[in-house]
Amino acid sequence: MKILIDNPTQQSTPLPARGDSLSSLAICKSHWEDSPYFDGWKEYARNPYHPINNSSGIIQMALAENQLSLDLLENWLYTHPEASIWAEEGVSRFREIASYQDNLGLPACRTAIAMFMEEVGGRKAKFERDRIVLTAGAIAAHEVLTFCLADPGEAFLVPTPYYPGFDRDLKWRTGVELIPVHCSSCNDFQITIPALEAAYQQARARNITVKGLLIINPSNPLGTTMDTSTLRNLLSFVYEKNIHLVCDEIYSGSVFSHPKFTSIAEILATDKISQTDRVHIVYSLYKDLGLPDFQVGIIYSYNDTVVTAARRMSSFSMVSSQTQHLIASMLPDTEFVREYLAENSKRLRKRHEMFVSGLRVAGINCLNSNAGLFCWADLRHLLQSHDQEGEIRLWKIILKEIGLNVSPGSSCHCSEPGWFKFCFANMNDQTVQESLNRIQLFMESKK
Amino acid sequence: MKILIDNPTQQSTPLPARGDSLSSLAICKSHWEDSPYFDGWKEYARNPYHPINNSSGIIQMALAENQLSLDLLENWLYTHPEASIWAEEGVSRFREIASYQDNLGLPACRTAIAMFMEEVGGRKAKFERDRIVLTAGAIAAHEVLTFCLADPGEAFLVPTPYYPGFDRDLKWRTGVELIPVHCSSCNDFQITIPALEAAYQQARARNITVKGLLIINPSNPLGTTMDTSTLRNLLSFVYEKNIHLVCDEIYSGSVFSHPKFTSIAEILATDKISQTDRVHIVYSLYKDLGLPDFQVGIIYSYNDTVVTAARRMSSFSMVSSQTQHLIASMLPDTEFVREYLAENSKRLRKRHEMFVSGLRVAGINCLNSNAGLFCWADLRHLLQSHDQEGEIRLWKIILKEIGLNVSPGSSCHCSEPGWFKFCFANMNDQTVQESLNRIQLFMESKK
Repeated sequence: MKILIDNPTQQSTPLPARGDSLSSLAICKSHWEDSPYFDGWKEYARNPYHPINNSSGIIQMALAENQLSLDLLENWLYTHPEASIWAEEGVSRFREIASYQDNLGLPACRTAIAMFMEEVGGRKAKFERDRIVLTAGAIAAHEVLTFCLADPGEAFLVPTPYYPGFDRDLKWRTGVELIPVHCSSCNDFQITIPALEAAYQQARARNITVKGLLIINPSNPLGTTMDTSTLRNLLSFVYEKNIHLVCDEIYSGSVFSHPKFTSIAEILATDKISQTDRVHIVYSLYKDLGLPDFQVGIIYSYNDTVVTAARRMSSFSMVSSQTQHLIASMLPDTEFVREYLAENSKRLRKRHEMFVSGLRVAGINCLNSNAGLFCWADLRHLLQSHDQEGEIRLWKIILKEIGLNVSPGSSCHCSEPGWFKFCFANMNDQTVQESLNRIQLFMESKK
Repeated sequence: MKILIDNPTQQSTPLPARGDSLSSLAICKSHWEDSPYFDGWKEYARNPYHPINNSSGIIQMALAENQLSLDLLENWLYTHPEASIWAEEGVSRFREIASYQDNLGLPACRTAIAMFMEEVGGRKAKFERDRIVLTAGAIAAHEVLTFCLADPGEAFLVPTPYYPGFDRDLKWRTGVELIPVHCSSCNDFQITIPALEAAYQQARARNITVKGLLIINPSNPLGTTMDTSTLRNLLSFVYEKNIHLVCDEIYSGSVFSHPKFTSIAEILATDKISQTDRVHIVYSLYKDLGLPDFQVGIIYSYNDTVVTAARRMSSFSMVSSQTQHLIASMLPDTEFVREYLAENSKRLRKRHEMFVSGLRVAGINCLNSNAGLFCWADLRHLLQSHDQEGEIRLWKIILKEIGLNVSPGSSCHCSEPGWFKFCFANMNDQTVQESLNRIQLFMESKK
């Protein structure tokens, strides 16, 4: 065991913090933003593409945002003044909405979100309103859940490639570790039990307590959905190891072709699993409803203690009641929701096809995918050296010469150099075409 | 110095956490809610007063919320459809508003808040837009600032009595300590340098690093403003000790009689203090604008590193862009803002006078106050025993027999038993009268 003793003879004691110094969190290495993912964003911010004002600027393809269906939302808003606090129909509710709520969130908002999650999951599982905890955005939902499940120094296994922001979002303030589980292109980056087992055993050998497995389904950055047998295997794994399963399902309503999405909630319901208290879902209205900056994150936990603790922690991250009121008004409109999801899926499929086939013509293949706002492109044949350095060199060429901000696989902890994530739903057709033209020109120059 | 050594012989090592256990935060003692402050809220929730449906229910007087001027906000909303995303005037901006922002927040929103803070401070100091960090509520602003300034185990000095929620909000996830600085009724609970010095030296003797002094001005729960000489003394103290000064100014627009409010920003400007990077202000639109559940918290820091770190941390606690748009539309309407602040102040003064004089008639005196949504009542003559036990016994009588949920001084760390905080702005005149009737009946029964 480790014990503390006083040793007055040694002089290398770190000095006690000066009162005017800042915390280690505030002064830590670039606040975990020292990765190409964040560097690319900063480079883009300095020189953003605009078709007229800055036609040689950088096109933002690292932003997983859905701008394809905003017109559907606009139409709904315009025809539903009662959801506003402005119109005569809504202003009567202003007092109630503006007034101090407890941190549960408006019941009508949570009911509406439960209904929406059921709809997105194909009505295969029920969601209970009172297991929904609202947070100001999906990042907050993930952080709150991490605070609830693990102590500093404890860890989650995370299959690679995974969303680059997790390293900052989940580790910075919680002190929790993420342990990559390496998946490979030989089976299209599917998670295997041997890979999980190896990562788990390595963590144990390093004396690290593994508290859970964190999966993203549909995957960010792969754009693929997990099949039921994989989900069942993962459940068996977490039950065998006595650890938690956190399922990030924030792209579940952004599936645009077969196979369909299966929520972990569906497996729990279908298999009539009784011990569900190790399963937790993170959801949001960021991606599936094109409402990114309205900041509605959701924790759905089957564990009562987690629901209670997370709800209390959500005091640090409350959703504006103005926005809760909008959600509570919009999502129970089942007809609108179904039409929106169907039409949005159609538009995503079309955009995906446009971009992926454009890449194919240029000589670049992508992993087959059926979901998400991005594709996972195989640029291995363009690497000068088949290592991370070669990948970063190519990433810099894409950023600075081709003028596209994309995410290199290494920022997603992908262990095979040469894969890149391209986002395609945060722009109009013309901008997609401009990005494809640039890529084609570049590829031709390589011949 | 302290060093770590391995000692394999000892057997008292805590067992490694089981993977399916929760974090110590999630399972800690009632999540810091084991105080009469939170108990009273729970009791109220079980039996809330309603003039018709539950006329013997508990009246909520522990809620510092301003419902006196909501009609002014309603009128503004109703006559300004351009601030909505519904009306024709607003829907054109929906795309821009709904789209993914960086964590800076909308520039127009931050500009509007800076203007509002200047107005509230009597235009005696300038606030820079780019020093404003937005968070989802004031609780989040305080927590983010604490995360930025102190490491776990480090501490802030906090003059008593102070807002009961701080013990949970500032300590729970950050691991930071709060050290009460005892103030007394002999000088109307004003902060003195000897009391600060004593608390500081006691902390040092316990080997605790003091990182800052946290003050609430206007005070919650006292309802008093700090004069300029006190503020100057506090500044000298923090400079001498090389520590930070955090000023919670969330009631600065809720001053209803003389003396006027003086922001720490005014002192920094007037005294032309150049080294300002240890001063940080927490503000919000909760109290002063009657928009509690719209969740707009503000950190204003003079320290560039804190601004950068806090802005990145605000990813965990984002303000809905829908609400940012509303703020950006409403607050630049200077005429409305000035009328609102003046009228709101007049209504608060009237309500304060009504309640305090009612208490006086019943035989209860309050500390003289000029701000806030509450008063600090002296019930020492009603104690059966002059200790904390006696105070809690009286608090239970007030809660269960009189049917008022108020906050006992001990929940605010007041070291003198018998003081209670009564909130008076979260109800209409009839409910205030009902509370006064009940108090008078109770006092008569004591004669």
